[in-house]
Order: sequence, then C-alpha cells, then structure tokens
Amino acid sequence: MSLPLFLVEALPATDEFRLDGPEGHHAATVQRLRVGEELLLGDGRGATATATVTAVGRGTLDVTITGRTYVPPPGQRLVVVQGIAKGDRAELAVQAMTEVGVDGIVPWAAARSVARWKDDRPLHRWRATVREAAKQARRPWVPEVSAAVTTADLARRPGPLLVLHEEASTPLSRVDLSAGGDITLVVGPEGGVTPDELAVLETGGAVAVRLGPEVLRTSTAGVAALAALSVRLGRW
Amino acid sequence: MSLPLFLVEALPATDEFRLDGPEGHHAATVQRLRVGEELLLGDGRGATATATVTAVGRGTLDVTITGRTYVPPPGQRLVVVQGIAKGDRAELAVQAMTEVGVDGIVPWAAARSVARWKDDRPLHRWRATVREAAKQARRPWVPEVSAAVTTADLARRPGPLLVLHEEASTPLSRVDLSAGGDITLVVGPEGGVTPDELAVLETGGAVAVRLGPEVLRTSTAGVAALAALSVRLGRW
Repeated sequence: MSLPLFLVEALPATDEFRLDGPEGHHAATVQRLRVGEELLLGDGRGATATATVTAVGRGTLDVTITGRTYVPPPGQRLVVVQGIAKGDRAELAVQAMTEVGVDGIVPWAAARSVARWKDDRPLHRWRATVREAAKQARRPWVPEVSAAVTTADLARRPGPLLVLHEEASTPLSRVDLSAGGDITLVVGPEGGVTPDELAVLETGGAVAVRLGPEVLRTSTAGVAALAALSVRLGRW
Repeated sequence: MSLPLFLVEALPATDEFRLDGPEGHHAATVQRLRVGEELLLGDGRGATATATVTAVGRGTLDVTITGRTYVPPPGQRLVVVQGIAKGDRAELAVQAMTEVGVDGIVPWAAARSVARWKDDRPLHRWRATVREAAKQARRPWVPEVSAAVTTADLARRPGPLLVLHEEASTPLSRVDLSAGGDITLVVGPEGGVTPDELAVLETGGAVAVRLGPEVLRTSTAGVAALAALSVRLGRW
C-alpha cells in the first residue's frame, strides 16, 4: 500500500515538523496514524517528503522528515475543458480525471450545460475535489482548476484544441500530435457539444476527434481520453 | 445526437413491430417519442435496426423498421475481473467500463472486498447497470456479467491474466500482447489486491502490470486500463 499523502502550504527547511489544521486532524483523528508510522507530506507543487510520526497530539502529528524528492512540472501539460454538468456527474469526472493524471481543468459553461454557476461555490467544490483526488492518487502536482470560461474564451485559447465529438471521423488514437506543446481536450456536458459550438471552435483551429464506436457519458469521456493520450504520449 | 436504443428479446422478421413492456413504457412515456421520430432497436447480441414511430399507445410504440445491421462479436474479448467494492463505487465502475467497451465482467470476492454478496441481488444490479449503460453507449453487444468467482477460480482461468497492481514494474502500455486471444484484466477492490492473492494468481501465470505513476481508485482503474488497451489493440 502507498503511504498516505497530506498536503501542506510548504515543506519545512528543517526535518522536524508539526502537521496541524485539517490535515493534522485527518491524520491523527480519522486515519489514526500512530508513533513510528510513515506518511508522505507534499506541497502540491512537486515537492514531497517521507516522514515518520514521533508524537501524536489532539488533531496534530509531530513528524521527522526522512527523505525528500522533487518532481518537475510536466513538459507537456494535458488540460481538459469540462462542460459543466448537473448533479454529481461533473465532480465524478473531475475526481477521476485527477486520478489519471490531468494537469489542468477548465470548467466550461456550454450551451447544453443545464447547471449554471451563479457564484464561486461550485468552483471551490471542484478545487476541493481535485485536491482530495490528488492526495488519494499520490500526485506530487495538484492540478489547477481555472475559473469557468465561455465558448468565445475557448476559441481564443492558444495551442492545439481537440474536441471529443461522437460524430467526428478522426480517432483520438490517430490524430497528429507531433507539434508538441500543451494539449487541450474539450469534453461537452451531458447532451454534448452543439453544432454551433463546434463550428466556433473549429474556426479557432480546433479538431473534432472521437473515442471508439461507443457513445460516452461526459463523466467517462475525459478519463478515457486522458488514458488513451497517456499511452500515446508515453506517459504510462 | 445518436438515436436512442431500446433492447428487445429478438428483432422481428417482418418490419412492423410493437415495442411494449418496460422499453415501450420508457420510449412512449419517459422519452415521449412521437410519430415520425426515429429510434434504434437491438437484441444485445449484434443485431440492430433503425425504425420510425408510426403510432403511440399507452406505454407502447408501433414502429416500422427501415434498416438492419449486424455487428459480429469481437474476435478478441476484453474481460475485466472487478473486485467487489462497497457502496456505489463498483456500480459506477461497471457502468463506465460498459461505456468504454468491456466485453465481459466477472465479479470477484477478493480478500479486501468489504461487501459480501449473500444472494443474487447484487449480481442482478450489476447486470441491470450493464444493460442500461450498453443502451446509453449504443452498443450492439451487451457485455456478459458472470457469477461471482473466488481467487482460486481466477487462478484456473485460461488465457492471459493481467493484474493491475500499484507496485508492479511492467507498464500495461508495454506488456507483451502478441499472443492474441481474449485478455482478462484483474482490478482489485478498494484497498487493492493482497500479496497472497497476487502470489496465487502469478502461480497461475498472471502478470502484474501498472498504469502510470498515479494510484487509481477501483472505480477508475478498469476504465483507464480498457481505454489504454483499446488504443494499443487498435479498437479505438
């Protein structure tokens, strides 16, 4: 079993550290770590340390750091633009995409998005979901979740844009990725990308691609596409 | 948008057909299809027909079949042995794996399976979930869900067996698949495959493989592995 990962603002310069706040509470009271047990500390920006528990307090753990590693940011980022979906479907998608290695997530207020974000609370929920999923997956980098964008914003986005579309003829497994650079995948909400949206995005240089013969739900499409790309790009 | 798919026992020899029962109710009352609209009928065993609504009754639709297709069964089947997990995680996994093209699912009572199946009800739930997901994904073949197996059953299973394991050193993207034949992927429950289970399976010829550097939940692992294999095998 992998050691549990706890996120901190910054790793300390010295090796003695007290884990407190919500992460300390979780470690001491929920996961009930004990003296002598090991854990991981991470800053979510590439720095990770292994540590051993030396004392347990009320909602705090004292630990000694025994090793440090740093993983540089990916040279090529995989970003998913996720159409805002209703219910828990979008959060399931965000959680699973974080597990399979997405580097950035952009919420998209699409034409067929039934849910509308009226304040920042849904964005904060996505960010909290991503943070928990990154811990569960032991990822040294926590993916960034940007503010929600419109279709016009998307069309102005630089770099290759791949739009998952069930009527596209180019398979994602064979689209030309030789240009390198960050890759942005667009996943529609439940109901999909409209013809108008696709036209706007294609005018901006986007390419419509498809994943196999099946019709995928929005909560499955991004995960499957990230897995397919991870094989193609040699990440996995 | 793809036409909605309704499953029937068998496609009729003649082109006039009445869709009734639960599928007729769903089409007439829930989806509210109207005269002149199109739909798909399928038997879940490769035969599919397009049809046009000619009359709407109380929970029934009369349709005229306008075209028929038959998709042969896959030459190489992808089967996932899914560790039984608690709560809705296993059903989410079964749903998403059906969307991405799994051909068969085998529930596995693993050492770390918290939930125990005491009767056939969970198996019937998995089968119903697979059937609904196959309709949603417009799959001509509904994947088979076999009865639950034990670890000893698995070790006796013929053909290549790949066990997803976070400590494996062989990436799934590079494991040798040149032998052909059906591929069985084993996905542990929440908590993973135990060292004892892995030893038993490896004695039977299984190979432990991993998917990227991340630690995946059981509800994500099978979907991601199927997507990766679909690219490798040229399905997508």
